[in-house]
Amino acid sequence: MSDPSSAIARLNALVGEVVDLRNAAALVGWDERVSMPPGGVAVHGDMAATIQRIAHEKFTSAELGHAIGAAARELESLPPDSEPKRLVNVTARDYDRAVRVPSEYVEEHAYVASAAHQAWKEARAQSRYGIFQPHLEKVVRLGQQYAGFFQPVAHPYDALIDPYEPGILTSEIQEIFDVLRPRQVELVRAIQERRVEQPSFAEAYYDEHEMLAFSTEVISAFGFDWNRGRQDKSTHPFATPIGSDDVRITTRFNNRHPFEMLFAAMHEAGHALYEQGVSPAWNRTLVRGGASLGMHESQSRLWENVVGRSLPFWQHFFPHLQRRFSSQLSGVTLETFHRGINQVRPSLIRVEADEVTYNLHVMVRVEIEIAMLTGAISTDDAPAYWNAKMKEYLGTVPDTDANGILQDMHWSIGLFGYFATYTLGNLIALQLWQTYTEDDPQWAERMQRGDFRTLREWLRAALHQHGRGYQPRDLVTRITGHSVSTEPYLEYLESKYGELYGVSPAARA
Amino acid sequence: MSDPSSAIARLNALVGEVVDLRNAAALVGWDERVSMPPGGVAVHGDMAATIQRIAHEKFTSAELGHAIGAAARELESLPPDSEPKRLVNVTARDYDRAVRVPSEYVEEHAYVASAAHQAWKEARAQSRYGIFQPHLEKVVRLGQQYAGFFQPVAHPYDALIDPYEPGILTSEIQEIFDVLRPRQVELVRAIQERRVEQPSFAEAYYDEHEMLAFSTEVISAFGFDWNRGRQDKSTHPFATPIGSDDVRITTRFNNRHPFEMLFAAMHEAGHALYEQGVSPAWNRTLVRGGASLGMHESQSRLWENVVGRSLPFWQHFFPHLQRRFSSQLSGVTLETFHRGINQVRPSLIRVEADEVTYNLHVMVRVEIEIAMLTGAISTDDAPAYWNAKMKEYLGTVPDTDANGILQDMHWSIGLFGYFATYTLGNLIALQLWQTYTEDDPQWAERMQRGDFRTLREWLRAALHQHGRGYQPRDLVTRITGHSVSTEPYLEYLESKYGELYGVSPAARA
Repeated sequence: MSDPSSAIARLNALVGEVVDLRNAAALVGWDERVSMPPGGVAVHGDMAATIQRIAHEKFTSAELGHAIGAAARELESLPPDSEPKRLVNVTARDYDRAVRVPSEYVEEHAYVASAAHQAWKEARAQSRYGIFQPHLEKVVRLGQQYAGFFQPVAHPYDALIDPYEPGILTSEIQEIFDVLRPRQVELVRAIQERRVEQPSFAEAYYDEHEMLAFSTEVISAFGFDWNRGRQDKSTHPFATPIGSDDVRITTRFNNRHPFEMLFAAMHEAGHALYEQGVSPAWNRTLVRGGASLGMHESQSRLWENVVGRSLPFWQHFFPHLQRRFSSQLSGVTLETFHRGINQVRPSLIRVEADEVTYNLHVMVRVEIEIAMLTGAISTDDAPAYWNAKMKEYLGTVPDTDANGILQDMHWSIGLFGYFATYTLGNLIALQLWQTYTEDDPQWAERMQRGDFRTLREWLRAALHQHGRGYQPRDLVTRITGHSVSTEPYLEYLESKYGELYGVSPAARA
Repeated sequence: MSDPSSAIARLNALVGEVVDLRNAAALVGWDERVSMPPGGVAVHGDMAATIQRIAHEKFTSAELGHAIGAAARELESLPPDSEPKRLVNVTARDYDRAVRVPSEYVEEHAYVASAAHQAWKEARAQSRYGIFQPHLEKVVRLGQQYAGFFQPVAHPYDALIDPYEPGILTSEIQEIFDVLRPRQVELVRAIQERRVEQPSFAEAYYDEHEMLAFSTEVISAFGFDWNRGRQDKSTHPFATPIGSDDVRITTRFNNRHPFEMLFAAMHEAGHALYEQGVSPAWNRTLVRGGASLGMHESQSRLWENVVGRSLPFWQHFFPHLQRRFSSQLSGVTLETFHRGINQVRPSLIRVEADEVTYNLHVMVRVEIEIAMLTGAISTDDAPAYWNAKMKEYLGTVPDTDANGILQDMHWSIGLFGYFATYTLGNLIALQLWQTYTEDDPQWAERMQRGDFRTLREWLRAALHQHGRGYQPRDLVTRITGHSVSTEPYLEYLESKYGELYGVSPAARA
């Protein structure tokens, strides 16, 4: 990129080392969940802690801070959009955030999270919130302390969202929720009233290996690059990049939910396509990777839901699936199958939620986080608050705290400010989709032929290649011409589910 | 082990960090050979280089040097054999060796080895030594330079053996070779003269999965701890510890050599049992691991050859094998099978060599290394030297350099001084075995019952638990009452193969 004695080359060498260590930490994490024998827990814990600590020390060093300053001065005359300038900007932004957080805080956070996670596992197993509550109290206090490092912010929660979704404000999220909430609640209610009986094909027995083979066929058609990635089994599906050229996804099979494996594969492949699509120019820099969690989620949800649960997709793939599972699917029509995989049912559990109810689960969590953070409610009040919100938004109340406030792992590992990114992902997916389908009027015919190349290349050119080079909100505007918006998403939801369930959008007006 | 403010605790913290990084490097290496998609080469190379460099910097830091000194002073009054003292001794020994080697040398070595490895691959593929020769020249010169860092030594080669086999001298290895050579050459010659026809069962088709299942049965019986280890497939079998509680072995299947998978599994399980048997007290210290490569090889060869190619072993396992491969082995007697897996045939290739010829391959390599290092021969002369030695020791001359001097990877990655450890492993295995069978007169009956617990626990108590806590030569003396000796090995070889091939040891006198 530049001569080795330049300031930018010096910065790249220092950052490259940090990237190498973070990649190694990612590999250790992957290994822990995929390959590690049970006895390896302690040695993996030590490895991960040491690598992460050294990476943090190196990244927050004064030497690196000076290198950023020198590189910025060296590049002063370049246009703001030039590659080296974007690289320095991303590095400077990450650096500024990292140095605001004292090492003692990082260590205390790790310590609190480790204890909280143990307590949460026990609390959930026994469905006793009381076991977890004192730990959640500490997690909330750490959140408040964290927000303090970033004063002045308009809202303390802004500081907590920022690591996951740089630049978005609490007020914007609240506005988004205020638009989504009534229309999604209404749509759920209307679908519920139809009392549509669900088809029974999903209750048959499906062979795991055949389902894996079909999933592989689908994500290969999406364009997952097996030369620069792999797929394994793990307890919970996830995607993890060890750099752009080694992107790993996992899947699982559950007899009671035989299609979960397929949709999880599409979801994780969506994440992977993003990572694999980042320009090689960003290798071994902090620009590699996704622009934000919401942006990442837009890709997984686009491939899983907008593509993978659509009619044109199954017009191509349903005959393939039927050939693999002839006895289970012989009498099933395409339309029945399509409705079956788009079943709407308010459930207690977020990870089992469908497209229509998902955001409502997210709102419960984000609203409770904000309320605890600002002291509007105490951690003692949280379960009652949770249950009341579930009743209000989904019309259902958890039978136990295990199926309620204790269901998600996030708080137990100190993730606070993360949940809204799921909803942002849903919205951005449909904004991108709308722009893509305008750009490519042949999209449906292509999909009916099983051809996803145009979509994939469009996403790569518009989004993937840039990595973290632009702020997520700027990227959305750059690609779609609009800032983050609810309309394409709501239109999609009301139109798709209106048709599937015979619910006219007009009916709700 | 001690209060956290003590000097020994401070040393342990610093060393623990280095151990974590080395474990991570081992994991990256394992992943590269087992899991990595092809595209991951560059990102893995960067990770490995950065981790190793940081580990080296941290290990050779002045801070760590001072911590060793402080810990040594703190422990002055303890007996020399106490655990903390052994720990400090091992650390000091490694530190003293590491700081003698300048970083510039380490970097140049990595650079030369990387280029040499590429050249070697090409040279071997084309069987053109000339492609590799200039690189070998550099490797030899680096070897000479390395020896210079350790002056005074009795022989420059002493410095090159030391990292692999601490404490052994070139003169001792030469004496050992002088005893082994005539007796092994004579034994090979005598067996050749018998012209015993080899049984044909090994030429049948064996199912890979069934062979893997049988290998697993065998190494489970040996005591491989699946809770603290795993087995995968890779191009070349190897064993790698990510600490004592996560020890990984690999295997491979080759249709043309269907039993290779089984014996490789036993071999690697032997390495793994050593690593898994190190006392947990040594976790996260430099005392963890095997005392030397020769010591390690003694364990792999003991389980593979002394146990796994013995008659009592197959008295138990042959019926199991016959049940799994009834068509291939139905007419085969135990005796025929036993002779078949102990076939002696002078070959060109070391890794295909049998127990009787193996050391002769090693001698060719070690003698050529010493001759090049001291300048007795030039790298230009090396192929002719190689072929002459092969003729002299094994009665066979390589048809090509690919099957001769270019066959082994070692020199191409800068491993110089390594080969003798294979022969030391053979000798030590039989010394340990002799002592064990004296201690446990029931050994044969146990083996005929498939019971390996007494042997395994004996090895653990005598050897494994100590890790690197004692110098290998002291360990051998401590366990067997003798220093490294050729007699148990030669007796075993002459007796076993004398019987199998009807060659009386007296005949050679």
